[in-house]
Amino acid sequence: MAIAKGYAAATASAPLTPFTFDRREPNDDDVVIAIKHCGVCHSDIHMVDNGWGQSVYPIVPGHEITGVVTAVGSKVSRFKEGDRVGVGCFVDSCTTCAARDLDREQYMPGLVLTYSGFEPGSDLPTYGGYSDHMVVKEGYVLSIPDNLALDAAAPLLCAGITLYSPLRHWNAGPGKSVAIVGLGGLGHMGVKLAHALGAEVTVLSQTLSKQEDGLKMGADHYHATSDPKTFETLAGTFDLIICTVSAGIDWGAYLSLLKVDGTMVLVGAPEEPVPLNAFALIPGRRTLAGSMIGSIKETQEMLDFCGEHGIVADIETIAIDQINDAYKRMQKSDVRYRFVIDMSTL
Amino acid sequence: MAIAKGYAAATASAPLTPFTFDRREPNDDDVVIAIKHCGVCHSDIHMVDNGWGQSVYPIVPGHEITGVVTAVGSKVSRFKEGDRVGVGCFVDSCTTCAARDLDREQYMPGLVLTYSGFEPGSDLPTYGGYSDHMVVKEGYVLSIPDNLALDAAAPLLCAGITLYSPLRHWNAGPGKSVAIVGLGGLGHMGVKLAHALGAEVTVLSQTLSKQEDGLKMGADHYHATSDPKTFETLAGTFDLIICTVSAGIDWGAYLSLLKVDGTMVLVGAPEEPVPLNAFALIPGRRTLAGSMIGSIKETQEMLDFCGEHGIVADIETIAIDQINDAYKRMQKSDVRYRFVIDMSTL
Repeated sequence: MAIAKGYAAATASAPLTPFTFDRREPNDDDVVIAIKHCGVCHSDIHMVDNGWGQSVYPIVPGHEITGVVTAVGSKVSRFKEGDRVGVGCFVDSCTTCAARDLDREQYMPGLVLTYSGFEPGSDLPTYGGYSDHMVVKEGYVLSIPDNLALDAAAPLLCAGITLYSPLRHWNAGPGKSVAIVGLGGLGHMGVKLAHALGAEVTVLSQTLSKQEDGLKMGADHYHATSDPKTFETLAGTFDLIICTVSAGIDWGAYLSLLKVDGTMVLVGAPEEPVPLNAFALIPGRRTLAGSMIGSIKETQEMLDFCGEHGIVADIETIAIDQINDAYKRMQKSDVRYRFVIDMSTL
Repeated sequence: MAIAKGYAAATASAPLTPFTFDRREPNDDDVVIAIKHCGVCHSDIHMVDNGWGQSVYPIVPGHEITGVVTAVGSKVSRFKEGDRVGVGCFVDSCTTCAARDLDREQYMPGLVLTYSGFEPGSDLPTYGGYSDHMVVKEGYVLSIPDNLALDAAAPLLCAGITLYSPLRHWNAGPGKSVAIVGLGGLGHMGVKLAHALGAEVTVLSQTLSKQEDGLKMGADHYHATSDPKTFETLAGTFDLIICTVSAGIDWGAYLSLLKVDGTMVLVGAPEEPVPLNAFALIPGRRTLAGSMIGSIKETQEMLDFCGEHGIVADIETIAIDQINDAYKRMQKSDVRYRFVIDMSTL
């Protein structure tokens, strides 16, 4: 065991405070990472609050992790000391499934979450990126392209891949009209990625308050969903809608904006069920789908794509002792567009 | 104008009674059809009751029509007197859309319904197949394969294509596990078609009362959804689920039966919205879609496929004066599996 420093919540909804804990000793196939930055995801707040009822306390959140390799096990071939690396939402997965179900391991049973999971074959909880170092199996470590700053690249590991995966899976690209619902941490990545993929991009946001930002990020159009005319004007115009909001919006109204055979993908999840009329789907052979992060292979592909296109998140860097305030500000959507913790402040 | 005989409802929910009305004179591109049989679809009841608020009275229902050609216009090339033909749910469509959006005209604006629509460019209502003859544009007339009886083939024109289209669109075939929810007029066609397409077919029905029938039709498995164990046993096992029921069932429970990347398609529509949890879709990249009948091209393909495989509906033939009783029996699911009117009784 190695002693690690971090910030943890001791119980549901408790504030995050300094916490010292054990990290496991590295195995032959492990990479040891000095964490430099960690993005702050809405899931972190939800997990600290035990909103999904699966949190393990004390909980050290953080799954948008970038850092530098400090040591590698004897069997590690892809990484060496000094490499710039990232870790996302999971650090292990079912190897049986991975064998027969390549490249969608995020959906298979046996996924080990980066925090609030358990180290495989052990009762040692996994602790996330609000900490000084991590020990991660080589197969779950990502390379960060040299031209991407480690702070602004951190949110790519969750927000980035959460948008990239459905955009690719549902073929966003030239000739396709894509709407991104919500311009927050997820949505702003969606605009940048969809634009770089060559799609015509529309932001659907509650108001026009972030319009200037959205257009700078690559949106071709920007509409306020508080204006009922938006739904008339845009009826039947999108091939793909990615819905990033976790508020309980009227999915049927957004589905009406799809072309025949269009798809709306939920990457934000309202806590309560949303009433849905079958006639929102049937008359245009429309589809409502869900998508969750991405596979390791796809995450590396996304990082390489971001390297080629110079895409990173728009961030506000904070010191670790500002994290509780940052959570409060996020709950008011008061961040443009992602908080990233500078781990040198730990 | 030519005088036609049929059965009509004079107002919403009125019983169907004998009705005499005008059919338009055939144009150069029209086919005149002596109607021999007409299937009785649940939509007929719903339209007579004005359940979708779009009914035009008096209403002559019927869109599962088979008959024999009695005359053709001078420009008709594909049909001649004596041909065995069918007419389904629509008799015209937007030609502008059809040009650029081939083979999914059923989803485009401008669709002219077989009954309770209006003849293009006129205020003459369209009247359906509960009648002695029809005048239909050549492009909307289907050929019935010689080996299919005109009575048992009639339900193919709506029930058949309603199931065939999603089965084909979502690639039901060898190696695919397909569930059909509900074994009624739609569902029993789904079992026969999915089996003939080579899929492994499971029926999910409220009880096991129709199990013997379902297995004879080609189902490999049959489960009662009233047994909660069904949902445990079958979790994550289907590539495709086609839901034919129009009752408000728990879509989330059925979505949990899909594999990763599986799709559930609604072809039955509950009148009320159904509460849906985003987590029924997100963790397995699952999809909820809708589908509505099929294009003319696809309907002919379906009929030819049924000809090759000897597929027709299981029917109970009735005289036209039994139609009101038939409606009552259908509302109690007391039909195995489709009523078909023998139009010689008119």
